[in-house]
Amino acid sequence: MRDAYLVGAGQTAFGSMPSESYRSLFATAFDRAIDSVPGGLDPRSIDEAVIGALGVGGRQLGLAGPAITEHLGLHGVPCSRIENACAASGYAVRQAVQAVQSGMADVVLAGGVEVMTDLSDDVTNYWLGVSGETEWERLTGTTFAGVYAQMASAYLDRYDATAEHLSMVAVKNHANGAKNPHAHLGFECSLEDATGAPTVAEPLTLYHCCPTSDGAAAVLVASEDVVEEYTADPVRIAGVGAASDRVGLFQRDTYTGIPASELAANRAYEAAGIEPDDLDVAEVHDCFSIAELLAYEDLGLCDRGEAHTLLEEGTTDPDGAIPVNTSGGLKSKGHPIGATGAGQLGECYHQLTGEAGDRQVEDAEIGLAHNVGGSGGAAVVHVLEREGAA
Amino acid sequence: MRDAYLVGAGQTAFGSMPSESYRSLFATAFDRAIDSVPGGLDPRSIDEAVIGALGVGGRQLGLAGPAITEHLGLHGVPCSRIENACAASGYAVRQAVQAVQSGMADVVLAGGVEVMTDLSDDVTNYWLGVSGETEWERLTGTTFAGVYAQMASAYLDRYDATAEHLSMVAVKNHANGAKNPHAHLGFECSLEDATGAPTVAEPLTLYHCCPTSDGAAAVLVASEDVVEEYTADPVRIAGVGAASDRVGLFQRDTYTGIPASELAANRAYEAAGIEPDDLDVAEVHDCFSIAELLAYEDLGLCDRGEAHTLLEEGTTDPDGAIPVNTSGGLKSKGHPIGATGAGQLGECYHQLTGEAGDRQVEDAEIGLAHNVGGSGGAAVVHVLEREGAA
Repeated sequence: MRDAYLVGAGQTAFGSMPSESYRSLFATAFDRAIDSVPGGLDPRSIDEAVIGALGVGGRQLGLAGPAITEHLGLHGVPCSRIENACAASGYAVRQAVQAVQSGMADVVLAGGVEVMTDLSDDVTNYWLGVSGETEWERLTGTTFAGVYAQMASAYLDRYDATAEHLSMVAVKNHANGAKNPHAHLGFECSLEDATGAPTVAEPLTLYHCCPTSDGAAAVLVASEDVVEEYTADPVRIAGVGAASDRVGLFQRDTYTGIPASELAANRAYEAAGIEPDDLDVAEVHDCFSIAELLAYEDLGLCDRGEAHTLLEEGTTDPDGAIPVNTSGGLKSKGHPIGATGAGQLGECYHQLTGEAGDRQVEDAEIGLAHNVGGSGGAAVVHVLEREGAA
Repeated sequence: MRDAYLVGAGQTAFGSMPSESYRSLFATAFDRAIDSVPGGLDPRSIDEAVIGALGVGGRQLGLAGPAITEHLGLHGVPCSRIENACAASGYAVRQAVQAVQSGMADVVLAGGVEVMTDLSDDVTNYWLGVSGETEWERLTGTTFAGVYAQMASAYLDRYDATAEHLSMVAVKNHANGAKNPHAHLGFECSLEDATGAPTVAEPLTLYHCCPTSDGAAAVLVASEDVVEEYTADPVRIAGVGAASDRVGLFQRDTYTGIPASELAANRAYEAAGIEPDDLDVAEVHDCFSIAELLAYEDLGLCDRGEAHTLLEEGTTDPDGAIPVNTSGGLKSKGHPIGATGAGQLGECYHQLTGEAGDRQVEDAEIGLAHNVGGSGGAAVVHVLEREGAA
């Protein structure tokens, strides 16, 4: 089995860009990924492409992958589209790792894209809703905010956390996002802003919910046999873990955690041979603030019921022991469904290569990216390691 | 790199089954695949699942993969959905091979499903149309029959073939399909039936077009490390090749061939270390009769412009040198988009294991499955080899 490395990453800004197409957005992310490769990378070296997308807004439901590679001048290259709702491009990168490790490819383009803001609210709700459980969630009127609100209610009821802790996630992630030129909601917010905002689904306020964004993100994965051509400072994909679960929240084993995340994380840690304590930085899937609290526990950053203490103690602040969502997270950076997972890996990669600008975490050597599909029907976790570290 | 093997395959009948759901259909295919494993296979041994689908009719656009694994009792297993239009499950099987060869999985469930016949014609045309080029094909009113009719016109104009040869494909494949209990249109047709049928898109008549079908197909892929637990007569996936191309026909290098098919086939032959002459049986993507003629040439079964001679000489008949579409092909067996590729591999597998019933080709040792997305924006070719053969 050959090792796989990240050798480049790029993304568009996330935000409302109705004048862009899914192809123009992906092309921007691709160009930036290519430009980011330290030793340069001729696009003709790419021998596989994997594109994550929920459905690019219905514009090209079939062959959206080849429609993108064609636009990049990469026609001929094997290309497929991966769909796993909001975890589409996390899974796309995982598939790129499999392609490299299988020996079928040496350089793989993986990424994702979504165009959502030019859809009507009804269509957006449809597209998002069909990623939830159909019969007992979507068709009965439950939105994703509603599903995560059920998790939040159960969590706040069971443990010592309060609604203020949900707001603390928003405050931290907006403060991080304010330093990220790519962020959709790149402004700070106060505890009062977050707590006093209109309720979307009790107990979640507007500031506890991520926005609907357009955007694209791409990474370049290379095999150990060719990695030296592209960089002297490679970042190894040390471990990947993934898991599915029942799509509907009501069918799962718990409301106060996401079992697929825990399973995926444990598989990734085992593959990488590390413990959660070894992590220096993490991007986690905070589509709603409660999701970041659950992620702390599912990823083993703390014990069950203790997530709020990490926030109180500043453990996940940029200068804490394990900074989380330095990019601003889905909350502030934005959440263009298919692009989110690859965007998280891009932030992690740039933290490990020291290119995270104002958001740089000192001496980050091991990072994690955690991407969830729907409310937990799918999850994928990557552990990245700067070569020579640990 | 570890070798990957097929150890089981199952499918539903293809046809019009509006009382079935995408999940009930896939469960039937899955059960049959499990039951087909000679040594038995405990579903708990499955450590990855890859589901191909265009969009299961819009019922579960997001997380359709986990919605299926959940229904099979396989929640927990990493699962994603692959979309490459009509080549979705051919690519799903390819991804299963990568998962095994990468070392990430030992037993992978791969397959596909589509439910189409309960959609209105308008919706069906939308779902199919969005797999074509959007701006200059779908939105200008070109259907897939229209696109393939353009290929047929160009081909008949350029070479010696006539419309009668298109009908000969239909006659052959219906004769094969009449022996297949799973076929959607399992009846014979005469040359007069095919030639005299109403025109769909000049020069293609109704009998030159495959039907819109419901159905599901599944295969089980195992690594060389565990294959002996499941069968004493394994079928090795000796080579896989894939390629993308520009989605729109008008953008491609030729109208009288499918370049992605040729590229995919050459890659598969190279990986398998075989020549087209070595093949004993093949399932090719005959969504329209012209496509089977193009496939003969793209796959190297004959020279350019000579495909019609294979039909005239009976080379691709069940008792010919290289029987093609013993299952009945898309033409007679049916074409439930996401299920087609895995169904082709199932037919090939059963031909190599001697379980093809009335359609059995004598001493088949090397087989090929050829699956095309759209009008050629994607293609994937698998070469299967009965262990110990060649």
